[in-house]
Amino acid sequence: MNEIPHEKPYHLDPEDWAAFRRLAHRALDLAIEDLESIRERPVWVETPDWVKDRLVSPIPRQGKGLEAVLEDFYQLIQPYGVGNRHPCFMGWAHGAGTAVGIVAEMLAAGLNLNCGGRNHIGVELERRLAAGLAAQFGFPASADGIFVTGTSQANFIGVLAARRAALGEPLRERGLSGAPLTAYASAEAHGCVAQALEMAGLGRNALRSIVCDSQGRIRPDLLREAIRADRKSGMTPFLIVGTAGTVNFGAFDPLDELASIAADEGLWLHVDGAFGALAIFSDALRPLLSGVERADSIGFDFHKWAHVPYDCGFILARDGDSLRETFSAPAAYLSRAKKGLASGETWACDLGPDLSRGFRALKVWMTLQSYGTESLGAAMDANCAAARHLAALVNKSDLFRLAAPAPLNIVCFTTERPEGNRALVEALHLEGAAAPSLTLIDGNPVIRCALFNHRTEIADVDIFFAKAEALARQLIAYECSG
Amino acid sequence: MNEIPHEKPYHLDPEDWAAFRRLAHRALDLAIEDLESIRERPVWVETPDWVKDRLVSPIPRQGKGLEAVLEDFYQLIQPYGVGNRHPCFMGWAHGAGTAVGIVAEMLAAGLNLNCGGRNHIGVELERRLAAGLAAQFGFPASADGIFVTGTSQANFIGVLAARRAALGEPLRERGLSGAPLTAYASAEAHGCVAQALEMAGLGRNALRSIVCDSQGRIRPDLLREAIRADRKSGMTPFLIVGTAGTVNFGAFDPLDELASIAADEGLWLHVDGAFGALAIFSDALRPLLSGVERADSIGFDFHKWAHVPYDCGFILARDGDSLRETFSAPAAYLSRAKKGLASGETWACDLGPDLSRGFRALKVWMTLQSYGTESLGAAMDANCAAARHLAALVNKSDLFRLAAPAPLNIVCFTTERPEGNRALVEALHLEGAAAPSLTLIDGNPVIRCALFNHRTEIADVDIFFAKAEALARQLIAYECSG
Repeated sequence: MNEIPHEKPYHLDPEDWAAFRRLAHRALDLAIEDLESIRERPVWVETPDWVKDRLVSPIPRQGKGLEAVLEDFYQLIQPYGVGNRHPCFMGWAHGAGTAVGIVAEMLAAGLNLNCGGRNHIGVELERRLAAGLAAQFGFPASADGIFVTGTSQANFIGVLAARRAALGEPLRERGLSGAPLTAYASAEAHGCVAQALEMAGLGRNALRSIVCDSQGRIRPDLLREAIRADRKSGMTPFLIVGTAGTVNFGAFDPLDELASIAADEGLWLHVDGAFGALAIFSDALRPLLSGVERADSIGFDFHKWAHVPYDCGFILARDGDSLRETFSAPAAYLSRAKKGLASGETWACDLGPDLSRGFRALKVWMTLQSYGTESLGAAMDANCAAARHLAALVNKSDLFRLAAPAPLNIVCFTTERPEGNRALVEALHLEGAAAPSLTLIDGNPVIRCALFNHRTEIADVDIFFAKAEALARQLIAYECSG
Repeated sequence: MNEIPHEKPYHLDPEDWAAFRRLAHRALDLAIEDLESIRERPVWVETPDWVKDRLVSPIPRQGKGLEAVLEDFYQLIQPYGVGNRHPCFMGWAHGAGTAVGIVAEMLAAGLNLNCGGRNHIGVELERRLAAGLAAQFGFPASADGIFVTGTSQANFIGVLAARRAALGEPLRERGLSGAPLTAYASAEAHGCVAQALEMAGLGRNALRSIVCDSQGRIRPDLLREAIRADRKSGMTPFLIVGTAGTVNFGAFDPLDELASIAADEGLWLHVDGAFGALAIFSDALRPLLSGVERADSIGFDFHKWAHVPYDCGFILARDGDSLRETFSAPAAYLSRAKKGLASGETWACDLGPDLSRGFRALKVWMTLQSYGTESLGAAMDANCAAARHLAALVNKSDLFRLAAPAPLNIVCFTTERPEGNRALVEALHLEGAAAPSLTLIDGNPVIRCALFNHRTEIADVDIFFAKAEALARQLIAYECSG
C-alpha cells in the first residue's frame, strides 16, 4: 500500500454555506414549479440522442461543483422522466407523487439515517408504523413488518417466511435438501411471485398457476383440487399467494376463501397487495379485502396508490416471530448493548435481509399524517370513478370495445383489429398526449389504462379518449389508403 | 363492493402552492442549519419516552396538513437520529451524508421516477453509470449492473448469479434439486454472505469459513485445501466470496490470488466490497483492490465511503448476461415496444429482482459530478490518516492497547480488562460525546472505531481519545472504590 499523506482531512461540506443555501433554494423553487406546471407539458418526451451523448462520460476525477451539476440536471435530466406525475399518464401502476414527498425526502437525506438497526428515531418510527398498519389490516399485536423497496421484495420475504415455517429450523443451516414444496397463485398473479420461488431455490415450476373466473379472480374450487392432486403425487404444498389487485385488471382474489383453504390445509397465506392492499384506506373499496385479516403476511407498496415517492414497499407479517425466525442472526458487529446507541430489541435487520436501509418511514409518516387515510382513500375512489367513466366511453364508442373486465381502476380495451393497438399506444406516447400501456390478453396486444394518478380528473379521461379516437381514425384511414 | 360516489376527483396537490412553497423553503433552511451546526450538538441523544408516546397513534383518518406535521418532525424526529453525520461518530461503517445529497433527494422525489424499466432518463442514467463504474473497476464493455438498497442485496444477487452459472438453465424452472453446492469466504466475511446462501436455499452450512492470516485476510492455501477436500467428498464448489474491507478490521483479501484460484477451479468470484470497493477512487488505496478486475461480480455501497444518502448499493457483473440469465422474465405488462415509453432494450428489472425502484442514480451522479473521485478519495485517505493517528494514541496510552490489526480506517482497542469496554462505550453514547461501537474479538468485547466520516479531523480523534481516557480512569476508580 502506498503511503497515505497525513494531511489536513478533506471534508465534503460546502466551503460557502450561504452559496449552497442559495443553490438549494433555487433547486427547490424549480422542483416545485416543475410539479405545479405539470399539466402544461407533454406526458412524456423521449430522451434525445444529444442528451444521451452528453451523459456518456467516464466518472470524473475532478468535480465541477453543485452549481454546474444543477445546470446539467435541468438540461439533461428533468425533462425526460417517466411521465407518471402527469394526469394523462395511465400506463402502469405508478403513483404520482406529492409535494409533501419532496419535503420528506429532503429531510430524510438531511438526517441520513441508516434504518437497519440500533437505537434511534428511524427504527422507532418504523416500529410504530408497523403497529399502525397491523391495526389497519386487523392483525394481532404480535404482528410486525418492515419497509422494503417494493412488493417484489415483500413477496420474496413472504415466500421465505412461508418456506421457513414449512421446513422448520434446519432449513437455514442445511438448505432445501430436495423438499418438493409447491405454491399456488392465480393465473393473473404478478410475475414476481414465480421469481421469488426461483430466488428461493424452489424453481418456478413449484408455482401452480390456478385458472381464474371471468372476473380475473382465482377459482377456489380449482385451488383445492390442485392442492389435493399435489399431495397425492407426493408434493408438499406450503403456500398460497392471494392477489389483491391484479396487474392487468385490478381483480381481487376472494381472500376469505383463500384463508379458509390455507387453514384447512395448513398452508401459509401471503397476500400480494402491491397496489390493492392500501385500498383498505377507502370505505368503498375495503370490502374487496375481506379476509385479509386472516393472512399470514401481506406485501404492498406506498409508492403506488398512496403516492409516497419511489421506492417504498412494506412486508407485514401477522406474527413478527415468523420474520425473526427467518432472518435474525448473531454477528459480532450487530451485538446489542443494554444502553446507548447499540441497544434496542428488534432491529429491522432481524426482520428482513437488509442492514443498510434509508428512512422510508419518514415519507410514509409525513404522507399519512398530512393527508390522513380519508384523503388517500378518496383519491382511490376518484380513480375508480374515472375508470368507470372510461369504460362507459369505450362501450359507447364504435372504434373500441372492452377487452377485459374493469372492476376497479384499470380498463383494458381494443380496437376492432388488435394489431392496431400497438401503433396507437406508441403514437400517443410519441405525441406526448397520454401514456396508456399495452398488455397482452390471450396473446393479443390490448390498450391498458391504469388510473392511479390523484391528478387525473374526468376531464383528463375525456381528453385522452378523444385523442385515442382521433388517432384510431387516422390509423384506419392510413391503413385503408396504404 | 359498495357503490363508489362518482364525485369530483380528489387530488393531493397543495390547495395553496404559495403557502406550500413557504413551508418547503423553511424546511430546507432548517435542514441546512441542522447539518451546518452538527458539531455544536451531542453525537447522539436517546429518544425520550414522551417522544415515543407521542408517536404511538393509530394511522389518522383525517390529515393535519404539512405545517403541523413539520412541527412534529422538529420536535419528535430531528433530534433523535443515528449520529452518523457528527465528526465524533465512529461506530459503524456509515457514511456521513453531504449537502449535495439533500438537493439530490429533493429533486429525485420531485421527479418521482420508477427506475424498474421503460424508456426514460432514470434508466438511461443508470446504464451510463454502470458503464462508468465498469471502467473504474477494469471490467470489459460486456459488464452491467444496477443499484440496490445495499451490499446485503448485492451479495445476494451475486450468489444467485453464481448459482445460475453453476447449475445452468434448468435451475430457474426446477429449483435446486439437491445439488450439494459449496461456497467459500474468509472467517471475517460479513454475515450477509451466509444469509445470502440461506435465502438462496443452500443453507448457511454451504459456506466454508476459511481461516485468516494475522492481518485478517483469507489464507489462499487453506482456501485451496478446502475446495480440494470438498470435491473429494462429493460437493460441488461454485463460489468464492472475497472481502474488500472486512467489517471488523478493514482487511482486504488478496483478490488477485482469489481470482487465480477461481480461474483454476472454475468457480465464480464475487467481491464483497461494501465499503472497500470504492477505495478504487483513492490513488493510495487502489492497490489494495488489485485483482478486482478479474472478479465475476462486485457488490458495494455508495452510502458508506462515498457519502451518498441512504440507501444506495450497487451490484456490478463483469458479464451483464449473467444477470439477465438470472433475472429476466417475460411478462405481458413488461412487454417491450419498438417505440415510445415502453421501449428500451435492458431494463433494470432484467438485471435484478426489483420492478419498483427509486432514482438512486441521481444522487450518485450528482455526488460524483460535484466532487469527482479525487475529493471522495481524499476523504478516504484522511480517514486512514486519522485511524493511524488513533492507533498511535492507543499505543502510547497506558490505559488501552490495540486489540486487532488496524490496516485501514478501523481501529479496535481494549482496556486492560475487556469487561470495562462495554461500560465505556455505553457511557460515551449516553454522554453524547462520541459514538464508537463494540465488537467481539475471540469472544471478548472490544472498542471499535470505524472512521468513515469526511468531517472527522485529527482534532476530533484527539477529543474523542481524551474523553475515552478520562472515562476509563473514572471507571477504574469506580471499580476500585466499589
